[in-house]
Amino acid sequence: MSGIEMTGAAVMGMGKPVRSIQRAGESGFWAVNPMTGEMLEPKYGCATDAEVAEAATRAGEAAWAMAVSSGEMRAELLRKIAEKLLSAQEAIVQRAHLETGLPLARLNGEMGRTVGQLRLFADVAADGSWVDARIDTAQPERTPIPRPAVRSMLRPLGPVVVFGASNFPLAFSVAGGDTAAALAAGCPVIVKAHPAHPGTSELVGRAICEATSELGWPEGTFALLFDSGMAVGAALVQHPLVQAVAFTGSTAGGQALMKLAASRPEPIPCFAEMGSSNPVFVLPGAMEARAGAIAGGLATSFTLGSGQFCTKPGVVFVTKSTPESFWETLRAAVGGMASMGMLTAGIAARYRQGVDARKRGAHGVETFAEAARTDESQIAAGAPTLMKTTLEHYVSTPELEEEIFGPTMLVVEYATVEELTWVAQGLRGHLTTTIHAEEADGEFVAGLLAALERRAGRVVWNSYPTGVEVCHAMVHGGPFPATSDSRFTSVGTASILRFARPVCFQDVPDGWLPKELQGSNPLGMERIVNGRRTRESLE
Amino acid sequence: MSGIEMTGAAVMGMGKPVRSIQRAGESGFWAVNPMTGEMLEPKYGCATDAEVAEAATRAGEAAWAMAVSSGEMRAELLRKIAEKLLSAQEAIVQRAHLETGLPLARLNGEMGRTVGQLRLFADVAADGSWVDARIDTAQPERTPIPRPAVRSMLRPLGPVVVFGASNFPLAFSVAGGDTAAALAAGCPVIVKAHPAHPGTSELVGRAICEATSELGWPEGTFALLFDSGMAVGAALVQHPLVQAVAFTGSTAGGQALMKLAASRPEPIPCFAEMGSSNPVFVLPGAMEARAGAIAGGLATSFTLGSGQFCTKPGVVFVTKSTPESFWETLRAAVGGMASMGMLTAGIAARYRQGVDARKRGAHGVETFAEAARTDESQIAAGAPTLMKTTLEHYVSTPELEEEIFGPTMLVVEYATVEELTWVAQGLRGHLTTTIHAEEADGEFVAGLLAALERRAGRVVWNSYPTGVEVCHAMVHGGPFPATSDSRFTSVGTASILRFARPVCFQDVPDGWLPKELQGSNPLGMERIVNGRRTRESLE
Repeated sequence: MSGIEMTGAAVMGMGKPVRSIQRAGESGFWAVNPMTGEMLEPKYGCATDAEVAEAATRAGEAAWAMAVSSGEMRAELLRKIAEKLLSAQEAIVQRAHLETGLPLARLNGEMGRTVGQLRLFADVAADGSWVDARIDTAQPERTPIPRPAVRSMLRPLGPVVVFGASNFPLAFSVAGGDTAAALAAGCPVIVKAHPAHPGTSELVGRAICEATSELGWPEGTFALLFDSGMAVGAALVQHPLVQAVAFTGSTAGGQALMKLAASRPEPIPCFAEMGSSNPVFVLPGAMEARAGAIAGGLATSFTLGSGQFCTKPGVVFVTKSTPESFWETLRAAVGGMASMGMLTAGIAARYRQGVDARKRGAHGVETFAEAARTDESQIAAGAPTLMKTTLEHYVSTPELEEEIFGPTMLVVEYATVEELTWVAQGLRGHLTTTIHAEEADGEFVAGLLAALERRAGRVVWNSYPTGVEVCHAMVHGGPFPATSDSRFTSVGTASILRFARPVCFQDVPDGWLPKELQGSNPLGMERIVNGRRTRESLE
Repeated sequence: MSGIEMTGAAVMGMGKPVRSIQRAGESGFWAVNPMTGEMLEPKYGCATDAEVAEAATRAGEAAWAMAVSSGEMRAELLRKIAEKLLSAQEAIVQRAHLETGLPLARLNGEMGRTVGQLRLFADVAADGSWVDARIDTAQPERTPIPRPAVRSMLRPLGPVVVFGASNFPLAFSVAGGDTAAALAAGCPVIVKAHPAHPGTSELVGRAICEATSELGWPEGTFALLFDSGMAVGAALVQHPLVQAVAFTGSTAGGQALMKLAASRPEPIPCFAEMGSSNPVFVLPGAMEARAGAIAGGLATSFTLGSGQFCTKPGVVFVTKSTPESFWETLRAAVGGMASMGMLTAGIAARYRQGVDARKRGAHGVETFAEAARTDESQIAAGAPTLMKTTLEHYVSTPELEEEIFGPTMLVVEYATVEELTWVAQGLRGHLTTTIHAEEADGEFVAGLLAALERRAGRVVWNSYPTGVEVCHAMVHGGPFPATSDSRFTSVGTASILRFARPVCFQDVPDGWLPKELQGSNPLGMERIVNGRRTRESLE
């Protein structure tokens, strides 16, 4: 591990960058190498109730200081975390490889994404205009009653609990997008590490702790808690000082957290990204023009990362008159594949169960391609599998719209584009929907697009849904059950908006206002003054 | 009624601007004049299950057309509604007076606010920049993978159910802020009329129907349903086509709707504004400098509209060394008042129960001023009542923080500013908090302000919380239990954000994109292009 010793701590952070508290008799767990099945040292302790309470209390204390930290200070913290991650990159990536089985190249790429994300949020925090500063100036002479000076801006919610995801051990875990967005907004973060990669989590958490400590941030700015089950996460979500929840993972897990967050004495926002089957609609003209290319693109997309992306295309609608070349390309691609390593033995088992149930359960579903070879070097593995069915069968079998996490895709044959549009209107919520269309499909595009945008956070044109760009315009979200709250994205700069709420200051004198709202505009920010965007100071 | 005949319809809208469906044996109800107790004709039918379903279906249909309506078209609709309301102003205000007992001058003022609100949202819709258009341009040459063109904007949620409020029969009811914001966002609206003012609701609904009909909007753009109980509202919130809920009213009502919205198979956003006791913190220096003025201001504020504003100051914290002039001014002001007319007999009864329970229940609470006279012209009335207690008693009696709807205020005496700040930190969520401070209080202001902004949507300085300006920077919101969702305001132009969600279009060609996202920027809108705000077209 490049000379870094793992601690097996149950809790990190809170001024104790490394705390070795593996006590005798304590409940705990080990990471497991999914390629070999071997247990990886050290044993990680599960956080106790007292440790959960301490983490929340410290975060509650830190929230006061963080709420008055400047955007520049937050930017400095995020950049320092990025720097610390890069220093530890080799150790982190090596451990992540052992814990997840993901290839080193992919993990190095994901580290790049993670660091880039932190730096992008640093820019957002430093720029500061995300706070949506608004000023309506006083009109003391107005009749019948004078108008007060009314100013508002987004202010941090307070402590945020972040759940690490299994499928992105870096970019959606301890120092991932949720953490970066929450820190940028001025919120303390408590991460519940994903139990499949505790060692990776520890190393990343240590990098964050070094950054907060070197820059003198309060102890409660960041904490990392471990647990092999649900108790610690549930206790965190229910703690009165916690003000928001961010989760990426399964539907069952996300919905359980939604319920917990909504049933607290004081309900809090819960941002759960729970995945979807990301339907792809191939119109007849597109199929005629590009059958082989579309098949090739789909074959790559549904097996990328062993099909363990939440944007994997799980369902594809193609016309009954699809040329044989489409099927042949898919068959050839998948037939040439071996079984693929998966993140954990549990995920691999659930994948096989899901595929088997779909094969078994439905007379109308036919398996038309399957990876022939088994990769013997992988214990936790899943065979890429393609199935097909008719639109009639699809619409009468709602569970076919559900995600199967792993390298499988269901191809659905439709007879007419009218029925396709009707299916589009009846979709449940998805992260993405995709449309493949050519000139010849023109008359159907408007209706289909109108339907698809209502059921997804992102509509992809003549491409594939995997690959989520981290940028300003990205929406990684969508209606329930894809996420818990369609009004927000969990990727891209707008994801910072999840962790803030507007606060209005009426007639508060300049000296007591946040700098963002002061008359002289000391930060030189763009603000909405009496309805007009401007960087000017007031008079 | 200025020649306008009331219909007693159970449903309006959906292309049937006036539908007289008072069928024999149908369940129904009458409005009651709260000043006299007399029942007001006509009888209003309660909407049936079939009528609820029809309203939702029509709204679902209209949502498609509304989603592609331009901002200019929506602005035209909102302005037409304002015009129709002004034409019917006399009849509306007369009927509202009979149904609510509110003075004509107040109702004419509220009509001005309502019309102003509609026109302000028309401006917002026409300007269009509220959609937060973002464009990240493609980078086809980027390695290792090209960057797609990613564009996003806020798109309407779909049908919104609006619940009329009892205390603002115009500005927070059928054509109130919620309706204006939802229509501006491009969402069809179904209003459940408040049963205390069905006739007012009908006249306003008729004005809206005339506007939608004259301008050729789809039938389902607007509907108005009547009910004396909860069944119609509950059925609307649970209807699968309904996509959001807006409510202003009681804690019990709002929490019931929150639960219904969250427990649907597809949960939807529920924006409930449930009121609060709006604590006022008077620091010692302010009290020393302005005891009489503060007492006078409070006396006016807590009795405004008979104390039936959700921003009424219900709790005031003053130092134990408060000069006698403060108490004298309050006693004199309230002693000179008569009992005040209230909106309904039920509200008046609940007010008296609330005041009596507070008097009876707590040894530590003392009534120090009460209106001496009874206004015999009012059947539904409440006597302005002032009570006081100590901070010790207050903190050990959590129900003293709860709102009593009506003209009563509790004054709490504190010993030190330190304990006051501690109380501020422990507040539940409120719509507003207010601080009165002078130079001499300087050392305490920062800590108190920091605490107060965390527990409220709006912090008021050296003034009073009643009066909610309709402007760009207003936040009428706040943490639970003041509202269901602290991330949004229900007053001011930002309230449009409740009814939209971001949708991202990846690589979609210009011709298929909404105008707001097209390369040439045909609407000349301000957009965020590659992170920079600009009105320029793409290259």
